[in-house]
Amino acid sequence: MTELKNDRFLRALQRQPVDVTPVWMMRQAGRYLPEYRATRQRAGDFLSLCKNTPLACEVTLQPLERYPLDAAILFSDILTVPDAMGLGLYFAEGEGPRFRRPVQDAAAVEALEVVNSKQDLSYVMDAVSLIRRELNGRVPLIGFSGSPWTLATYMVEGGSSKDFRRVKTMAYDQPGLMHLLLEKLALSVTDYLNSQIEAGAQVVQIFDTWGGALSAAGYLEFSLAYMKKIIDGLHSEYDGRPVPVIVFTKQGGQWLEAIADSGCSTVGLDWTTDIGQARARVGDRVALQGNMDPTMLYASPQRIRQEVGAILESFGSGPGHIFNLGHGITPEVDPEHAGVFIEAVHELSPPYHAAQ
Amino acid sequence: MTELKNDRFLRALQRQPVDVTPVWMMRQAGRYLPEYRATRQRAGDFLSLCKNTPLACEVTLQPLERYPLDAAILFSDILTVPDAMGLGLYFAEGEGPRFRRPVQDAAAVEALEVVNSKQDLSYVMDAVSLIRRELNGRVPLIGFSGSPWTLATYMVEGGSSKDFRRVKTMAYDQPGLMHLLLEKLALSVTDYLNSQIEAGAQVVQIFDTWGGALSAAGYLEFSLAYMKKIIDGLHSEYDGRPVPVIVFTKQGGQWLEAIADSGCSTVGLDWTTDIGQARARVGDRVALQGNMDPTMLYASPQRIRQEVGAILESFGSGPGHIFNLGHGITPEVDPEHAGVFIEAVHELSPPYHAAQ
Repeated sequence: MTELKNDRFLRALQRQPVDVTPVWMMRQAGRYLPEYRATRQRAGDFLSLCKNTPLACEVTLQPLERYPLDAAILFSDILTVPDAMGLGLYFAEGEGPRFRRPVQDAAAVEALEVVNSKQDLSYVMDAVSLIRRELNGRVPLIGFSGSPWTLATYMVEGGSSKDFRRVKTMAYDQPGLMHLLLEKLALSVTDYLNSQIEAGAQVVQIFDTWGGALSAAGYLEFSLAYMKKIIDGLHSEYDGRPVPVIVFTKQGGQWLEAIADSGCSTVGLDWTTDIGQARARVGDRVALQGNMDPTMLYASPQRIRQEVGAILESFGSGPGHIFNLGHGITPEVDPEHAGVFIEAVHELSPPYHAAQ
Repeated sequence: MTELKNDRFLRALQRQPVDVTPVWMMRQAGRYLPEYRATRQRAGDFLSLCKNTPLACEVTLQPLERYPLDAAILFSDILTVPDAMGLGLYFAEGEGPRFRRPVQDAAAVEALEVVNSKQDLSYVMDAVSLIRRELNGRVPLIGFSGSPWTLATYMVEGGSSKDFRRVKTMAYDQPGLMHLLLEKLALSVTDYLNSQIEAGAQVVQIFDTWGGALSAAGYLEFSLAYMKKIIDGLHSEYDGRPVPVIVFTKQGGQWLEAIADSGCSTVGLDWTTDIGQARARVGDRVALQGNMDPTMLYASPQRIRQEVGAILESFGSGPGHIFNLGHGITPEVDPEHAGVFIEAVHELSPPYHAAQ
C-alpha cells in the first residue's frame, strides 16, 4: 500500500503526539456541498448513490478537494446491513429511511441470516477499495457501521421513530428475542467492518445514534455489550498497522467511563459534553473525538473560531484529541463556514501540541 | 385553607420521612385517558380546553379519580406565557404548537413586555383556584411553567424544531439579544409562578424540555442561569408552608450537580440517568424525582412492576424520592398499565422507608 502522507489522525487516535489537532466532520460528504448535490442528481436517489462505486468514491473525495481535512470517510448509509439481510431499505421523500419488511416478531428475527459482507455487500467493499486507491495516501480512510442497537431500532420500528415504542417493548417484554436479534447484528457488523478493513479502511467508527434513547441499564445491556462484542471480533491489526475503533454514542455523555472500557481506541462525543470534563473522567484510556455543536456552523466565522478555541482550551494540552462536530453537518450550512471551522482547528491548535 | 390529607409528596420534596414513595406522572391528565378525550372533545381544541376553567379543572382531577396519585398538576400548556405576550399560539393538527408572530429580530425582542400574570393569564389563576378548592386537601397541587430557554426555543423558531437552528444562531451571534429575551422571560415566569402560588399551587415545577439541546457551557449560560433567577424570585414560603421547586431538564443528566445548586428543592430526572448514581452525585442537597422510561408502560404489567422495583432499589433507602416517569405519559398507553405502575410504587416501596 502507498505510504500515508498525513498520519495525524491515526496518531491522535492512538494518543501519540501530533503537530496540530486533526479534524474531520461527520457527514462531510453531504448535501451542504453543491458538488455533492450535483453528483447525487446524476445517481438518482440516495441509495443508488451508495451503490454506485465510482460515484460513491467521487462524493467521498469531494470535501477533501475543498478543505484540508485529516481523514476521509466512506460514503455509505448505516442501514446497508439490514438491507443486505433482505428488509428492503428505501428512502421516502422527506421521511427518512424505511424498511419494506420490518422485523416485528419471533419468526422474523429467527429467519434473519447473518450477512456475508464480501458477498452480500460487495458494492461497499468495491467503494472502499476504490476510495483507498484514489486517496493515494493523502489521508486515512474511515469505514463505519451502525451499532446493533441502532440498526435494531430501524429494523423493528420499520423506520425512524420518536419514542422507539416497538423496539423498546420487544426489549422489555421479550429480552431473549431482542438479544437474538442483536447477536445476529453483532456478528454481521463484525464481518462487515472486518471486510471493510480488508478492503482498505484504516480506522472504523461505530455509529450508535440511538443508544442514548435507552435507560442507563438498558444502554449497557442492549447497546454497549454488542459494541464490545464487535470490537473483540475486529482485526486489531491489519497490513502491519493497528486498526483504531471509534465508538460514537449520541447522548452517551453519562456513560463515558463504560464506553471507554469497551476496547475502543477513541470515544466520540456529542456537543452536550464538556470535552475537558470528559477527558478528566476517562483519563488516558482513550482518545476523544469531537465536539462542536453542528448548529454553530450557522453562526458568524468569528463566533465559529471562538468556539473552536474554547473546545481546544477545554481539552487542553497533549495528544488524544480528534476535532469533529458533535453530530453530522446539516444541509443548509454555508460551505465557507465549514472551511472556517476546519482552518480554525489547524490554526489555533499548535500551542496545545508544543513541546510534547 | 383545608388541611392536607396526603402530604407524602410535600414531605418527600423536602427529604422528610414518608410511609411509601409518593408518585405522580408527567402529563397524567392526558390523551391516554378516554375521559380526557371526551372532555377535550367538548372543549374543542387543546388551547380552548386550557382556557376553559371548569373543564381544565375537570381534566386535572380525572387521573385522581382513577389512581391513588400523590399529587395533582394544573392542566395547562407550557406556552401560555409567550401566548400572553402576544405571539398568537395555535396548534396545527399533527404539527404541535406554532406561533403566528415568532420573535426573530432585535425589534421583536425589544417590543416584548413582561407579562402581568394576574391580568394577562387570569384564566390560569382561575383554574388553579378552582382545582385547589375541588381537591379539598386530597393531595397537593403542582403549578408549572416552561423554562425561559425552552420558551425561547418555541418563540424564536416559531414552533417545534429538530436542530434549534434559529434560536441557537441568535444565542451564538447575538448573545446580548438572547439574554434580553431570557431576562424578560425570567421576569415573566417568576411573576407567573408566584401568581400560581398565590392562587393555590403548593409546589411548582419548571419544565426545561430543551435545555438538553445545548452544549454544557450553553446550558449554564442560557438555561440554568435563568431558572436560578426565577427560583431566587419565588415565594419560598406561602400560607405558612415552604413552596418546593422542582427543576426538570430533559437530557440534563450530565449537569445534575449544577442543577442541584440552583436553589431548587428537587431535581427531576429523565430515564437515561441511573437514579442511584444521581443520588450519589447530588448527595443530600436535593430530592430526586423520576425516572421510569415512559415507554415501559407499553410492556407487560409484570415487567412494569419489575422496573419499578429496580428503580426503588437503585435509589435505595431513606427519604427524598418522588417516583415519576422520566417524561410525559404517551397517548397510546393502556390506562390499566398506568394503574399497575402507580400501585407498584406504593406496594413495593415501604421496605425502603422502614425504621426511618
